[in-house]
Amino acid sequence: MHPSPLLSLALIKEASSFLEGRIRRTPVEFSADLSERLGMEVWLKLENLQVTGSFKARGALFALHRMHQEGRDRVATCSAGNHGRGLAHAARELGMKATIFVPASVDPVKVAGMERDGADVRKSAFPGFDETERWALEETERLGIPFISAYNDPLVMAANGGSIAIEVAEQVPGATTFVMPVGGGGHAAGFAYWMKETLPVSTIVACQHSGSSALLKSLELGDAVTEMPPIHTLASGLEGGIGPNAFDVLKSRVDAVCTISEAELRHAMRWMVDHHQVIMEGSCAVAVAACLQERIPKSSGPVVIFISGRNISRASLVDVLSESDE
Amino acid sequence: MHPSPLLSLALIKEASSFLEGRIRRTPVEFSADLSERLGMEVWLKLENLQVTGSFKARGALFALHRMHQEGRDRVATCSAGNHGRGLAHAARELGMKATIFVPASVDPVKVAGMERDGADVRKSAFPGFDETERWALEETERLGIPFISAYNDPLVMAANGGSIAIEVAEQVPGATTFVMPVGGGGHAAGFAYWMKETLPVSTIVACQHSGSSALLKSLELGDAVTEMPPIHTLASGLEGGIGPNAFDVLKSRVDAVCTISEAELRHAMRWMVDHHQVIMEGSCAVAVAACLQERIPKSSGPVVIFISGRNISRASLVDVLSESDE
Repeated sequence: MHPSPLLSLALIKEASSFLEGRIRRTPVEFSADLSERLGMEVWLKLENLQVTGSFKARGALFALHRMHQEGRDRVATCSAGNHGRGLAHAARELGMKATIFVPASVDPVKVAGMERDGADVRKSAFPGFDETERWALEETERLGIPFISAYNDPLVMAANGGSIAIEVAEQVPGATTFVMPVGGGGHAAGFAYWMKETLPVSTIVACQHSGSSALLKSLELGDAVTEMPPIHTLASGLEGGIGPNAFDVLKSRVDAVCTISEAELRHAMRWMVDHHQVIMEGSCAVAVAACLQERIPKSSGPVVIFISGRNISRASLVDVLSESDE
Repeated sequence: MHPSPLLSLALIKEASSFLEGRIRRTPVEFSADLSERLGMEVWLKLENLQVTGSFKARGALFALHRMHQEGRDRVATCSAGNHGRGLAHAARELGMKATIFVPASVDPVKVAGMERDGADVRKSAFPGFDETERWALEETERLGIPFISAYNDPLVMAANGGSIAIEVAEQVPGATTFVMPVGGGGHAAGFAYWMKETLPVSTIVACQHSGSSALLKSLELGDAVTEMPPIHTLASGLEGGIGPNAFDVLKSRVDAVCTISEAELRHAMRWMVDHHQVIMEGSCAVAVAACLQERIPKSSGPVVIFISGRNISRASLVDVLSESDE
């Protein structure tokens, strides 16, 4: 593992300044339909419109820039896809070589994106994230390439979650409730850290897949559940255990956890196309679903839902969109 | 008709300044696939990510703001959908009442958007745009409501096309070829006016539906063809004749016209989802199709394709996306 500084407000500010002009400032969009359903003002942070199709470009650019400054020219990671796309993009920008280990179940759109950016993509024999990551760690140690975790690295957390929290606070002034998907926990940790330090009254709602709810189980146990059995889901970014560093941050900062079924997240993907004409991948659909299912706590201020990515193959998209809601 | 000033560089600059902070500065996205196919650097101006789902919010906000300053509180238009959505949004922002006449063939997503913004939507008995507009003009004259043309009003042209030209020139420095859909011609006129005045070497490529190519016919005749027989197409924004004011601007400023078939534009919509994971409606697909079919002239500098809107119903989208390209 590559050594990193601790998560802090200063590190988040540094990440945010670094990223200015290097990434898109993605828009927030008012949702008339959700606002009416919930009786609260609801906004979508459309980070699925980020370069590389997800927020993961933020953490990858920030972390790789540091490594590049330290004289490194190679980097490896394990990713369900979006962190890999982010890393491939960042490596290309910096002239570094990226090796990316992906589960057998990876969406082909994500692999195509990584390869377009010149990454060496290695597909695992395992469908699940945790088994793939174990293999990836062995391989990178053998090859002597520094490894950047998709969810447990403080630099990545600061840039992925923290820099977005700063933007959202500017874009929706007065917002108090923040609804987001949680898998490995890196984005949520960076986001919740910034928000709870700067706006202690804020409410953080973590949304998980009901078949892979590592954060919920970790909160019940009081200890990070770092591995989960593989599941078959469109929300591949949410599959697997939680990072111990991420859990350390989240355990005292998450106010509610919603678990969402596969059918509910597929319904949310259809809702997004019907109401906003935007493609959203399965992982972020859990946060929209939590609102559509009216499972989030009542909020005094506006609610912001974090939409993390749009990387989904046409075949999977058509499969979801052609289903009926009746 | 509401009287308007003439199109000019000053009017375009005024529109651009007015819109700053009132609309989104939409991103440009590099297209690796199109760049490789064409052997030229190709960028997409993703104006489909604009508020209201299309660039038409620009012209509507600028024109309505002027009318509001003149003490008007009502406005009417005829629209295939996007200008109507833009006008409904602008009217709501300004506390005005909008009446919008739409063809019978209008996409339901567009009507839903207008009604959500409180507009009075009146559906025509005619499927085509030109017949609907004739009826709309009679009705608005009878009702005494000022009418804002979707494509022939210099204020709308300046804000819809001109303000985007200014942005694109900043976002893709050195770009010399600009590929865009043309229906009534308003956007293209504003865009081409700014670009040819400020960058005389630029190449303007106008893309039309092969079943409704009013600009091409007008150029052949040397006179604006303002009415065309209705056609059945997903590119409803391109159906109908060209505006005489728009044609006056375009006749000396368009370098090439490409006509695109329904099958070609549907293929382009699939390409967009496969390569960029972005929903694009039928009207802008003609510009992407012109590039995919390699019908645009060779360019010395980067090429920018204008992507105008994302307002399409899920049913139509699934119908297109589930087709095979084999």
